[in-house]
Amino acid sequence: MYQVRKELNVELGDRSYPIVIGQGLLGAYDLTPWVSGSQVMIVTNETVAPLYLERAKACFPGKSVDVVTLPDGEKFKDWQTLNLIFDRLLERRHSRKTTLAALGGGVIGDMAGFAAACYQRGVPFVQMPTTLLSQVDSSVGGKTGINHPLGKNMVGAFHQPNIVLIDTDSLTTLPPREVSAGLAEVIKYGLIRDVPFLEWLEANMDALVRLEPEAIGEAIFRSCQCKADVVSADEREGGLRAILNLGHTFGHAIETYAGYGNWLHGEAVGTGMMMASDLSLREGMISADDHQRALALIRRAGLPERAPKGMTSDDFMSLMAVDKKNVDGNLRLVLMRALGDAFVTADVQPDNLRKTLLEFID
Amino acid sequence: MYQVRKELNVELGDRSYPIVIGQGLLGAYDLTPWVSGSQVMIVTNETVAPLYLERAKACFPGKSVDVVTLPDGEKFKDWQTLNLIFDRLLERRHSRKTTLAALGGGVIGDMAGFAAACYQRGVPFVQMPTTLLSQVDSSVGGKTGINHPLGKNMVGAFHQPNIVLIDTDSLTTLPPREVSAGLAEVIKYGLIRDVPFLEWLEANMDALVRLEPEAIGEAIFRSCQCKADVVSADEREGGLRAILNLGHTFGHAIETYAGYGNWLHGEAVGTGMMMASDLSLREGMISADDHQRALALIRRAGLPERAPKGMTSDDFMSLMAVDKKNVDGNLRLVLMRALGDAFVTADVQPDNLRKTLLEFID
Repeated sequence: MYQVRKELNVELGDRSYPIVIGQGLLGAYDLTPWVSGSQVMIVTNETVAPLYLERAKACFPGKSVDVVTLPDGEKFKDWQTLNLIFDRLLERRHSRKTTLAALGGGVIGDMAGFAAACYQRGVPFVQMPTTLLSQVDSSVGGKTGINHPLGKNMVGAFHQPNIVLIDTDSLTTLPPREVSAGLAEVIKYGLIRDVPFLEWLEANMDALVRLEPEAIGEAIFRSCQCKADVVSADEREGGLRAILNLGHTFGHAIETYAGYGNWLHGEAVGTGMMMASDLSLREGMISADDHQRALALIRRAGLPERAPKGMTSDDFMSLMAVDKKNVDGNLRLVLMRALGDAFVTADVQPDNLRKTLLEFID
Repeated sequence: MYQVRKELNVELGDRSYPIVIGQGLLGAYDLTPWVSGSQVMIVTNETVAPLYLERAKACFPGKSVDVVTLPDGEKFKDWQTLNLIFDRLLERRHSRKTTLAALGGGVIGDMAGFAAACYQRGVPFVQMPTTLLSQVDSSVGGKTGINHPLGKNMVGAFHQPNIVLIDTDSLTTLPPREVSAGLAEVIKYGLIRDVPFLEWLEANMDALVRLEPEAIGEAIFRSCQCKADVVSADEREGGLRAILNLGHTFGHAIETYAGYGNWLHGEAVGTGMMMASDLSLREGMISADDHQRALALIRRAGLPERAPKGMTSDDFMSLMAVDKKNVDGNLRLVLMRALGDAFVTADVQPDNLRKTLLEFID
């Protein structure tokens, strides 16, 4: 038996979809109402398959279910690996009425979603995220894609899932480092627009690090709610949605420098949010106390506090120049006017930016 | 100076766009009203660049214009070549406000359009088709994509251009074989839903083969009008739009069998339409006279009448099984109830299909 703890809806007109959060969902929850054809292709990886594949298959009773198992890791988020999905779909003669199902973390969700966006010019897909980071962030909102050697997520599509099924029991097999990485995105929602949630996180961070079910279910629900609100208001990132990238411009530079997969995305975002907070302080937006509050919470989640060894401020400047938020060559960053109030700006003092970069490198 | 002969509009709500048909447009027509940012990337190939690149650049006065020149041919309509576009965009730091411009035939339009659909999850693009086939068909309607070794156009997206600029002067440099290939798609519009146009084509086919400007301008206009009507009614091929694939299921099988690029797409469609007409006759839908009329018109356009040497009926069956129109394993074909009245059916007599295949192989 399973227990649904929370449900919410991402409101996007005829592309609206539910997020179902609970325990014991994998193996028991019936996903067939979200599958229109007779075929399903589960996309998963070598780490997740032995743990959850059989249970995931059981969510599609009566359907013809195929599987493609990819190698695990951000460094495989590339065209060659994506093409393994297309190969399997075509070998097994999946029609454009097929449904893809992403079973795994953010890399699997992004790749399965992008494959669904492109296979025969678009087929439906469902998200079955198994990591904290994908449960609170990447499985919601329809951003899909792959990396390019010159930049992260540079090739992709907006393609919304039919449903997001979040089984919090899958977190019990997650390494502590990945729990911390997921908590970075959870903290982000507090920092960008939800002070009450920030206070709740300060009160519950130890329970979250220990993955206590009650606390983790609540944190996932409030994170998804925040993300759903922002995505509903601005699906294709014309404006508001960009605040979800707090810490991400610094973070993407770190990930690219370190080589995809050596830093977890959430780890880089954690350090990146510390840098964004530092720069917000230097720009006279937040107080020194606010900055310390942000740093303390990010630290308690177990996230790294320094840029990778050897990375210079010029490395940052060069890698940040290709960020997707940039317009006509101008660097755009997400900063905080105050805790819980993030915004996008193309107007930071270059000296302040340089000082922030120097503060976090060795 | 240039002369606009005809203009029409593809009605798709907030994705509507104009098609401008005329002479002397390349080099003179100002496309900057359809470019929102400061950057343009022209995607073209080695054959077209020496002929029209400088003139195409002149359509973007005041913009920063970069160019990526791809190898020419359907066999390069693959990921490796597509990635050359992404490489150049990232090397030149094109932001998500950039605009892509497709200068060339159907392969260039499909690849530039797909790159535009995917670069940073979607940027605008404009179509500057230089072949008859791309002017009457592939530049209109938003279908973009690349081939996969197991099937044509299997990876792609729907992504509408901002404008289609058709300079009929560019046809003067087109090899006769490509003129015939383009005429196959022109004839298709008459066969699927426009008997008056079919009659006009019977009266003007010799002028069209000779590329007489008056006749060719009219044929392009009426073809675009037909395509625009169908696409406006059914952008994502939920129903009606599938009739645009008359001859294409047979044709795609021929192209795949022959190896991409050995048969031109339009040539394969020409033979494929003969096969569809033959099967429509065997299924008791059209008369022997109608069938002969269709065959005669396709022949007069200079198109091939036989499947590639060595191709068997089993080759056809196997290659047609992966067609995108198929649903849950059932082969779906476009046939004619009557001349000018095409429809999609999953219900043909297997013996009739086999007889049609045998009729066209050696």
